[in-house]
Amino acid sequence: MNPVISYLILYDKLNVSKSVTPQSKDYAAWYTDVVTKAGLADYGPVKGTMVIRPYGFALWDNIKKIFDSMIKETGHVNAYFPLLIPKSFLAQEAEHVEGFAKECAVVTHTRLKLDEHNGLIVDPESKLEEEVIIRPTSETVIWSMYKKWIQSYRDLPLLINQWANVVRWEMRTRLFLRTTEFLWQEGHTAHATGKEAEEETLLILELYRQLAEDYLAMPVYTGLKSESEKFAGAEQTYSIEAMMGDKRALQAGTSHNLGQNFARAFDVKFQTQDNKEEMVYATSWGVSTRLVGGVIMTHGDDKGLKLPPKIAPYQVVVVPIFRDENKQSIQDYLTPLLSDLRSAGVRVHEDWRKDSPGFKFNEWEMKGVPLRLEVGPKDVENEKVVLVRRDNSEKQIIQKNKIAGLVPQCLDEIQTALFKSAKAFRSENTHTVTTYDEFKDVIANQGGFIRCGWDGTEKSEIAIREDTKATIRVIPFDENFKGLKCIYSGAPARHEVIFAKAY
Amino acid sequence: MNPVISYLILYDKLNVSKSVTPQSKDYAAWYTDVVTKAGLADYGPVKGTMVIRPYGFALWDNIKKIFDSMIKETGHVNAYFPLLIPKSFLAQEAEHVEGFAKECAVVTHTRLKLDEHNGLIVDPESKLEEEVIIRPTSETVIWSMYKKWIQSYRDLPLLINQWANVVRWEMRTRLFLRTTEFLWQEGHTAHATGKEAEEETLLILELYRQLAEDYLAMPVYTGLKSESEKFAGAEQTYSIEAMMGDKRALQAGTSHNLGQNFARAFDVKFQTQDNKEEMVYATSWGVSTRLVGGVIMTHGDDKGLKLPPKIAPYQVVVVPIFRDENKQSIQDYLTPLLSDLRSAGVRVHEDWRKDSPGFKFNEWEMKGVPLRLEVGPKDVENEKVVLVRRDNSEKQIIQKNKIAGLVPQCLDEIQTALFKSAKAFRSENTHTVTTYDEFKDVIANQGGFIRCGWDGTEKSEIAIREDTKATIRVIPFDENFKGLKCIYSGAPARHEVIFAKAY
Repeated sequence: MNPVISYLILYDKLNVSKSVTPQSKDYAAWYTDVVTKAGLADYGPVKGTMVIRPYGFALWDNIKKIFDSMIKETGHVNAYFPLLIPKSFLAQEAEHVEGFAKECAVVTHTRLKLDEHNGLIVDPESKLEEEVIIRPTSETVIWSMYKKWIQSYRDLPLLINQWANVVRWEMRTRLFLRTTEFLWQEGHTAHATGKEAEEETLLILELYRQLAEDYLAMPVYTGLKSESEKFAGAEQTYSIEAMMGDKRALQAGTSHNLGQNFARAFDVKFQTQDNKEEMVYATSWGVSTRLVGGVIMTHGDDKGLKLPPKIAPYQVVVVPIFRDENKQSIQDYLTPLLSDLRSAGVRVHEDWRKDSPGFKFNEWEMKGVPLRLEVGPKDVENEKVVLVRRDNSEKQIIQKNKIAGLVPQCLDEIQTALFKSAKAFRSENTHTVTTYDEFKDVIANQGGFIRCGWDGTEKSEIAIREDTKATIRVIPFDENFKGLKCIYSGAPARHEVIFAKAY
Repeated sequence: MNPVISYLILYDKLNVSKSVTPQSKDYAAWYTDVVTKAGLADYGPVKGTMVIRPYGFALWDNIKKIFDSMIKETGHVNAYFPLLIPKSFLAQEAEHVEGFAKECAVVTHTRLKLDEHNGLIVDPESKLEEEVIIRPTSETVIWSMYKKWIQSYRDLPLLINQWANVVRWEMRTRLFLRTTEFLWQEGHTAHATGKEAEEETLLILELYRQLAEDYLAMPVYTGLKSESEKFAGAEQTYSIEAMMGDKRALQAGTSHNLGQNFARAFDVKFQTQDNKEEMVYATSWGVSTRLVGGVIMTHGDDKGLKLPPKIAPYQVVVVPIFRDENKQSIQDYLTPLLSDLRSAGVRVHEDWRKDSPGFKFNEWEMKGVPLRLEVGPKDVENEKVVLVRRDNSEKQIIQKNKIAGLVPQCLDEIQTALFKSAKAFRSENTHTVTTYDEFKDVIANQGGFIRCGWDGTEKSEIAIREDTKATIRVIPFDENFKGLKCIYSGAPARHEVIFAKAY
């Protein structure tokens, strides 16, 4: 990587020198401290908008690249649909409009002008005949185009994705987790049969699981959403749900089987192989910059971020311990070593600033770089380097000729250890309860997930939500409700579900 | 590349079967025909918005990747700034507001609701206290953040880029060339000295030139814009200007030295090395999806697109001439050949559809694939393949064992030939004139570029524009105005400039 790039990331120096609020004291404050002090993001000037800083963007970009290649390997292609949607489109699908009308940014005018006092005002003469909204999601505009593109079964399946920004006017925002504007991918596919659409929905859910578990080291439950929690306009919504460090749930990705709802709304029919006319079946699915929030809260600690090596912008940070008089010899020692590492595909960053080693250690711990490599004059003499893991602070002194072999192995170990540790934490904090009183006690005092029976009624679901603020996060694929009773009503369970308070 | 991907790109079949309007008949109609029939883009439902279809998006994505690596190699990093900007920000820089106020999409409300007749209306109670605008460009929001990030000379230079969408409410739109929303990159850098800012501005201009000439095979003039044509808020604007197939000019990229204008507007000061306080120096620069329009109009002909191999989504399309009974043997023959080609890094697409070869030839010519590889049963027997160049229709029959060597070489030749041919076309259509009558005659009847003297006054510039619609495209770096007189006023020339009608 170019040395100038690393220079840039150091702008956060002033911030990092201050420590973060401990998790135990105030988890929300800890989160915001880490996001800002690690240089991931900042709030923008318009309420609830986010500036993704270079280090945070590099992290998102790594996640994006991984998922982009996953969907390409499974036959999807990228395209780009407009940001602006006619207001009337939203009304085409009844549930969809209900879900999004209350958080739409509405464009009503197209010009500004100076008034008589030289103040900048909206030019009333530029009022649009029909207002347009900024996409909160793109089903409507995409299906208006699919109507033009799909005529026959030969045009199906249509497997299109876009990487885009969307806007939902949120009241309470938090960086990465819930912002007025966020970045995401949204897939929108069209199929000839309901079966195919369902297969696509589940294929994508499985890709989301792989992305979360195998790359972000974030264990997730996969399964179906309850009726009240599904996407506005979907037949079924599947999701991946993760547990954060404060034991709350994070919905980290959703995949929707839209049935024929949007085809009906936009009148998208196709000619079948036997010359009949049928409505097209649809899916949509998305993951967003929210995943970055998930990574922070799955792995972070009071020292800052802990990044899984597979997505870390820098996998190894080199902190040379040097003075002016021995800088050259340390550089000479390091150059071939680091060149070997880089050839092995490791993302290495060298920190040659004049600040104290202790200061640098803190900074790179805050930024969550998985491995720190220290080299001082003594190490040069002994042909060694010091390797320190961010995840467990383990320190090893190793022979210089072993670095290129050991570092990739060590990064793999860290990746695995982060996942294991997150999974253990989730296990410890997933409870089974036998009475509703116990349920309420656990939610109120311990937190975490509760796995229990549910009678399948909205009534019980709402009652529980109102009592405890816990919601059904997911009906997990591995549910087993035989013999279970609904934790609220005592009636025979229709499902085994996972309840939790959620982000 | 995945076979399913290629399947997707074939949705345009129905369109392609119709031929395009000839360039000589109606160039604008030819352009729109090619864009839509080659499956590059479509108009969206909101006036002037564009849907970039998978084939068009793949083309843009290739251009994007090339430029992204160019800017990373020169030390720039990516970040992301918000779409929404407070209205008041625009007013901070006097020229900037004048340049953009008349084409701003203004968000005034944040909710929709159903009225008493069940119609969807804007909820008047959701009116924003201060309206926000959708970014037409991001100088203001970025400099409001730079104010927080820049304190000392140690924080400089700041070399940030973003890939984003912007909205400018245009009256007359044309796909890729001028759309209400477009995709682009916008770089925004901050420097300690004016000299550094100027160097950055010119560095980027040079990268734009390389992108245009070495990858898009689109020859460009580089130089300075006149005062009246520069960016709203810049001290100097440099640009690359290309000649399209109808001899009009296309401004294909601009790089601005913003001086201290935005630092002043947003009060961004830094502490210098000798402990003084100074305003920061700025640049900004951008290229957009407009480049795709440039590629189409630089190389296209009446058969459709001609894509330069370096940016073509598919560099080679394989059209097997087969029947059911020999399909397998042709596949067996092709598999190792194509595998060799792919290993050599060539982007190959196989077209095994049942349509006639002639139909397929037309379609892939429309889509501008640089090389077509035909294989029929006779070729299998003779261990040959047929190779046809899109740029000059040259047909070669070659030994199968020579393919992996010949194809990359042939792609290089096509890349070079396209550039050469575009450059020759530009030469032929760049005129020198000695009188203003001659100037008017050339602009009105021949078109093309005129290289001539200009007295440097806005008066002459405006008079010429009003008479002829030709504008000063650029003051080229290689200008030589010694002894020249202004083509309009006859006064001694201050510059040698290039005049043309432009997109």
